[in-house]
Amino acid sequence: MKFNGKNITIGKNVSLGENVKIGDNTILYDHVVIGDNTIICNDCVIGEPTNRYYTDEGYENPPTILGPNSLIRSHAIIYSGSRIGAHFTSGHRITIREQTTMGHHCSVGTLCDIQGYSTFGNYCRLHSSVHIGQKSRIGNFVFIYPYAVFLNDPTPPSKTVIGPQIGDYSQIGASSLIFPGITIGENCLVAAGSVVNKNVAGFSVVAGNPARFLCPIEAVRSREGNGAHYPWMFHYETGMPWAGCGYQEWLKQKTPKP
Amino acid sequence: MKFNGKNITIGKNVSLGENVKIGDNTILYDHVVIGDNTIICNDCVIGEPTNRYYTDEGYENPPTILGPNSLIRSHAIIYSGSRIGAHFTSGHRITIREQTTMGHHCSVGTLCDIQGYSTFGNYCRLHSSVHIGQKSRIGNFVFIYPYAVFLNDPTPPSKTVIGPQIGDYSQIGASSLIFPGITIGENCLVAAGSVVNKNVAGFSVVAGNPARFLCPIEAVRSREGNGAHYPWMFHYETGMPWAGCGYQEWLKQKTPKP
Amino acid sequence: MKFNGKNITIGKNVSLGENVKIGDNTILYDHVVIGDNTIICNDCVIGEPTNRYYTDEGYENPPTILGPNSLIRSHAIIYSGSRIGAHFTSGHRITIREQTTMGHHCSVGTLCDIQGYSTFGNYCRLHSSVHIGQKSRIGNFVFIYPYAVFLNDPTPPSKTVIGPQIGDYSQIGASSLIFPGITIGENCLVAAGSVVNKNVAGFSVVAGNPARFLCPIEAVRSREGNGAHYPWMFHYETGMPWAGCGYQEWLKQKTPKP
Repeated sequence: MKFNGKNITIGKNVSLGENVKIGDNTILYDHVVIGDNTIICNDCVIGEPTNRYYTDEGYENPPTILGPNSLIRSHAIIYSGSRIGAHFTSGHRITIREQTTMGHHCSVGTLCDIQGYSTFGNYCRLHSSVHIGQKSRIGNFVFIYPYAVFLNDPTPPSKTVIGPQIGDYSQIGASSLIFPGITIGENCLVAAGSVVNKNVAGFSVVAGNPARFLCPIEAVRSREGNGAHYPWMFHYETGMPWAGCGYQEWLKQKTPKP
Repeated sequence: MKFNGKNITIGKNVSLGENVKIGDNTILYDHVVIGDNTIICNDCVIGEPTNRYYTDEGYENPPTILGPNSLIRSHAIIYSGSRIGAHFTSGHRITIREQTTMGHHCSVGTLCDIQGYSTFGNYCRLHSSVHIGQKSRIGNFVFIYPYAVFLNDPTPPSKTVIGPQIGDYSQIGASSLIFPGITIGENCLVAAGSVVNKNVAGFSVVAGNPARFLCPIEAVRSREGNGAHYPWMFHYETGMPWAGCGYQEWLKQKTPKP
Repeated sequence: MKFNGKNITIGKNVSLGENVKIGDNTILYDHVVIGDNTIICNDCVIGEPTNRYYTDEGYENPPTILGPNSLIRSHAIIYSGSRIGAHFTSGHRITIREQTTMGHHCSVGTLCDIQGYSTFGNYCRLHSSVHIGQKSRIGNFVFIYPYAVFLNDPTPPSKTVIGPQIGDYSQIGASSLIFPGITIGENCLVAAGSVVNKNVAGFSVVAGNPARFLCPIEAVRSREGNGAHYPWMFHYETGMPWAGCGYQEWLKQKTPKP
């Protein structure tokens, strides 16, 4: 239904893995590399050239790497010079600019706008309409909810670009605003609507404008059972590597035996 | 100008009413049903298949119903399994996911993102860039302004999905945030920028982060004349069923005679 | 790479300057005028017809003017009846509706949504996902950061449309909300996350929900050197007309000699 081979454009030196599918009206520019079993839906642009293309006649598109077993939904724009790991999934109309690095098993929701020069660990999830300013550094298992915005210029406009840094497992609520250069530790919960202009220590819940410390993360009760909901890895496993065995067991398996 | 029949793709078992127009580069996937006189502009995707399409070889696209006399502006994506009533109007680049039900005379603005499994009454208006999380329930004559976000997971991430519920005639201001499971009564005004984490009784104005009760809705004065602006139905009739006769008269006509 | 002449649609009475490039899958509707050396990338729609097109058989598209030396990135929608000056630059998927007037050297970021009937001076910069309601008036050298929203209806819904007005050189922070009819003076800094519901005098910093006066703009220290960062024109010149000579010298050159 989606893969009729209509109006597809494929540039020079494009490398397609085995069993790759390309949707109608999609464009792959020069030097795109797509891993095995990856699906690119209709109306996507992969390997979008960077600024220099418009001014430099000798421009060569840098490679764009999309890992295997990924699903890019329609109308995505992914710039050349980005590298995305295996098992990536996207919503519609995402924009990922140049020099973005993502680990494996990440997902990026509809209308997300990643401005480039940022790094993401493994198993990150960006819900719809997340905006990530340049030079952000995001750990593993970080989930970011709709309309969260990551800033990077403390005195706009200036030449200073200092992105936020987010620790593993932290949850960044919807419509929250993370100020330039802010560090949020591991296992934090930034409540929806927070304006975070001070660093946040690990295992904290913050909320408000400006965001203030609310409680330790272990104090948030579960809606689904007794006791604490956080750290959430003990209560949620959909799509996580500990699905089936539990977080504790997965940690044990990861740790090398003495 | 917009309807040149260029690069249109039409799937299996698509049913087009009389006098339907389809714009260039538009795709209608299998089992789409379009009512009479409806216009689908260029670069739209109607009947987008759900997730299962990518993994299940026996996948059949569920029907997508678009009512008559509707206008879908360019670059819309509407998933299969959604049902939208008559006289629907959209802006550009909207996304409506599966199992969304809308009554008649609704409108959805540019860049809105409706995540599916939600219901809307009649005469709802979503302005630009509204985000509606799954399992939201929205009454009749509800207007939602730009960048408002409806949440549904009280302890993210979790398996709990409880969308907000909004009563008839309520107005949800720009960039407001409605927390998971929140109930907002009839005839409320949620001021722009509110973070609503407690239920709101009918006929209330709330504002702030977190949102607090400000005044009864009748206390908000009109800018256009003397007296109260709300309930707004007595002062505003553009596109409403009481246009020409007034709200009071319309109510009388609706009420069956004894 | 981007300009293969594939699936381009060009309407009646379209006027292309010298050395104009048009990307694949782009549509130029009737009466579009493009200045010399301007580049329109792939999948754009220029001269989108207004509402009346769908109901009025005698509809004639009003002219759409794009100045010379501009770069429109992919997936832009620019309505007919808008006039944009020279050296314009855009991100992806912008929407600019009818009767928008922009001076020269403006830029509009990815996913911006300009609702029309608004004016912008010269050298304005809108970062990603800025929403400008109708009847906004924006001065020169105004920079607006991601997810800022300009409102125009003080008692929604109503027929009153009063857009904000922003003075020269002011900086409107990310995710801020500017209320209907608000005037912000020259050389202000609206901090990210502000909800501005009162007028702001020139040379002020405001922050918070609701926004409150924080300090005079000269009190904000630079991160890049000693002393004050604002007025920013003395510290930032990328893309500005005073690049190379400095703001003071540029002002002198502008002032006619006695």
